Amino acid sequence: MFVSEALNINEKNHLTIGGCDAVELAKQYGTPLYVVDETAVRRHCRTYKDAIDKFYGGNGLVFYASKAMCNLETLRIVCSEGLGADVVSGGELYTALKAGMPAEKLCMHGNNKTYEELVYAIESGVGRIVVDNKPELDTIDAICREKGKKQKVLFRIKPGIDAHTHSFIMTGQIDSKFGFALETGEAHDIIRHALTLSSIEVGGVHCHIGSQIHELEPFRQAAVVLAGLIADIKAETGYEMKEMNLGGGYGVMYTEDDDPIEFDKYIEAVGEALRAACDEKGIALPFVMMEPGRSIVGTAGITLYTVGGIKDIPGVRRYVSIDGGMCDNPRYILYESVYKALVANKAGDAAVDKVTIAGKCCESGDLIGKDMPIQSVEVGDTVAVLTTGAYNYSMSSNYNRIPRPAMVMTKDGESRIVVKRETYEDLIRNDI
Amino acid sequence: MFVSEALNINEKNHLTIGGCDAVELAKQYGTPLYVVDETAVRRHCRTYKDAIDKFYGGNGLVFYASKAMCNLETLRIVCSEGLGADVVSGGELYTALKAGMPAEKLCMHGNNKTYEELVYAIESGVGRIVVDNKPELDTIDAICREKGKKQKVLFRIKPGIDAHTHSFIMTGQIDSKFGFALETGEAHDIIRHALTLSSIEVGGVHCHIGSQIHELEPFRQAAVVLAGLIADIKAETGYEMKEMNLGGGYGVMYTEDDDPIEFDKYIEAVGEALRAACDEKGIALPFVMMEPGRSIVGTAGITLYTVGGIKDIPGVRRYVSIDGGMCDNPRYILYESVYKALVANKAGDAAVDKVTIAGKCCESGDLIGKDMPIQSVEVGDTVAVLTTGAYNYSMSSNYNRIPRPAMVMTKDGESRIVVKRETYEDLIRNDI
Repeated sequence: MFVSEALNINEKNHLTIGGCDAVELAKQYGTPLYVVDETAVRRHCRTYKDAIDKFYGGNGLVFYASKAMCNLETLRIVCSEGLGADVVSGGELYTALKAGMPAEKLCMHGNNKTYEELVYAIESGVGRIVVDNKPELDTIDAICREKGKKQKVLFRIKPGIDAHTHSFIMTGQIDSKFGFALETGEAHDIIRHALTLSSIEVGGVHCHIGSQIHELEPFRQAAVVLAGLIADIKAETGYEMKEMNLGGGYGVMYTEDDDPIEFDKYIEAVGEALRAACDEKGIALPFVMMEPGRSIVGTAGITLYTVGGIKDIPGVRRYVSIDGGMCDNPRYILYESVYKALVANKAGDAAVDKVTIAGKCCESGDLIGKDMPIQSVEVGDTVAVLTTGAYNYSMSSNYNRIPRPAMVMTKDGESRIVVKRETYEDLIRNDI
Repeated sequence: MFVSEALNINEKNHLTIGGCDAVELAKQYGTPLYVVDETAVRRHCRTYKDAIDKFYGGNGLVFYASKAMCNLETLRIVCSEGLGADVVSGGELYTALKAGMPAEKLCMHGNNKTYEELVYAIESGVGRIVVDNKPELDTIDAICREKGKKQKVLFRIKPGIDAHTHSFIMTGQIDSKFGFALETGEAHDIIRHALTLSSIEVGGVHCHIGSQIHELEPFRQAAVVLAGLIADIKAETGYEMKEMNLGGGYGVMYTEDDDPIEFDKYIEAVGEALRAACDEKGIALPFVMMEPGRSIVGTAGITLYTVGGIKDIPGVRRYVSIDGGMCDNPRYILYESVYKALVANKAGDAAVDKVTIAGKCCESGDLIGKDMPIQSVEVGDTVAVLTTGAYNYSMSSNYNRIPRPAMVMTKDGESRIVVKRETYEDLIRNDI
């Protein structure tokens, strides 16, 4: 019935997360409230790690894509599970370092890293920088020469794979702001150029083919394409790159209609494809990296809201207004993303109603979803929206000057605040 | 040539705003940078005020819709011009009060005001609360009775007018989370009910028919519809409502393709329509309110960015990466909004290039615009995106943990910081 093992129903017919009664959490901490189950986050981390051990002889590293949800406690948890982190800005790098993540386990991304961000990354000693364009590579080399450092880099490649997903989150094709194209020779050129730079260690190649992908085949293809590039460069220059970062994009369950790949199946299948490709092309099996974000935290999180008004528009639809909305979860207004919602205080009841959940922002598009099946809803109910662990907190805004919600973590029936609720004072703290 | 009188080109061929060299502003304050011309904001405030004086005998009040851009200095400025403010949350109310706006000149909105927000508004003495639904009205009445207060309210009406705009920002139709429908009798019912409540002062009616509207006719129609409702209630109950709030939605120029109504023309035309309707229906000319937001601050603001990488994809498009993006301006990824961009350091040159301006977020949809005509762009150039005064700062996020930009105001060749740039420390200040 549920999209996550973290969720259950207790004897009061209330939704539970991590063994905590969601209705009690809403009372104790107020709403809107992000709730994330620590146990689920840890379980997802271990699934990836164990699969790399089992199917790939441990010859790899999992980076948590911190853009999915970036705060100190989440990074401490993934770090304690032995994962690294992928960071895409100075702010994410700062957060990861503050959380105690070792710099060598960080991978720095971005299509337009600023000079200051590159200096910060190099000075901090990040393990790998994923190079997006040629001027950036030259800047890294210059900074390293000036500081007497050598930086390991990977190259972001557009493998030209169509991953059948929303066009806004499909990033592997040639028409992308990210990376180097294979078919134009750009990818080969930049690697040959990098091999001439004394302060650059050419680690390997990276690709990211999209988000929320439910198929195995695009991942297999991407691994084979990157293996081909490693073989090409070896044939041309004699230099064999040792590392391959396959990015993220593994789908999760938002509703029962989603049928995601099991992460370990993914690693098994990609490992097999990669082994065959490397054998065929005469290269060593590379050190493999991957960057799951959504699949680590997505289903581990829910958001709790309190129902304010209910508005029936005869023959049209039923609006249920909650005390949050696009400010804490902009994914409906951005992508018309589909979520599953429950009345947390009637969680075991049948979904007899169909409602449009509206946020409290002054914007008509401020919805969580249209015509969502749900239990019978009344004013004062606690509504839980599921699978909000990824790209909710991290994409939240103060639109309409609404303070951002607190985040609570649960573990074995206990709960604790990990991000404090914003106050009105917070909203004007930088105003002069 | 330009979308705003605040903009010009100086002898160095640089863009100027409020008499300040945009390239110098970028150097002095860093990028990305929001720049807002105070003189333009004041001019827009005065246009509305003067038009109410001229065409409506001063019998009205202009509320600045603070959701367009809400910070202390902007609210101080509109307040000093004699405008009130419309606030849609406790956070906006807090900001307006801190800015010194008199509570009686505030109008409180929202489809789901929380109990705490209603108490805060009533205790602060806001002049008007715009009631969205029946439970809310009853709550206001209960709070007032408990506190021995009387609250003036307006009723948000869906006038059923199609304002030919993006469906996400069209709010006057019956399928809306906002307000009371006319055609179902809901609007009449709530007003009759309110007249029975001893702690409620029935001020009048409100509507808001959409955003970025370039036609006069929908506004005229809305005024006539609301006059009809006032007349209906008078005929049924003998009570004549004295106030009419016509909301906002007046379009502004984003590019040369936009042809907005001059605000004073709007007030002239609506005033005429209203006078005729009131005469015909035998009601007094109401006290008129309006709620411009975008048209006060939109064209007064620009955003300055520095160009990082440039990526040519042969036969496809040219990507120019800037040091901001959807985190400071989410309007492209939300609505595919069209902006005009200039190379500020070559502002007078012809727009010989066509580029896709990409932000620095790890998201393919993070663009400012596709295939935008612009001067020849090079790495290091300062790009100015125009008409960013509204719904940019107010909708900004920390996605990818990118600190929000500073905001500078210009006035007669001088500049000053009004919102400080966020720091990395700011990003983790609520993390535990």
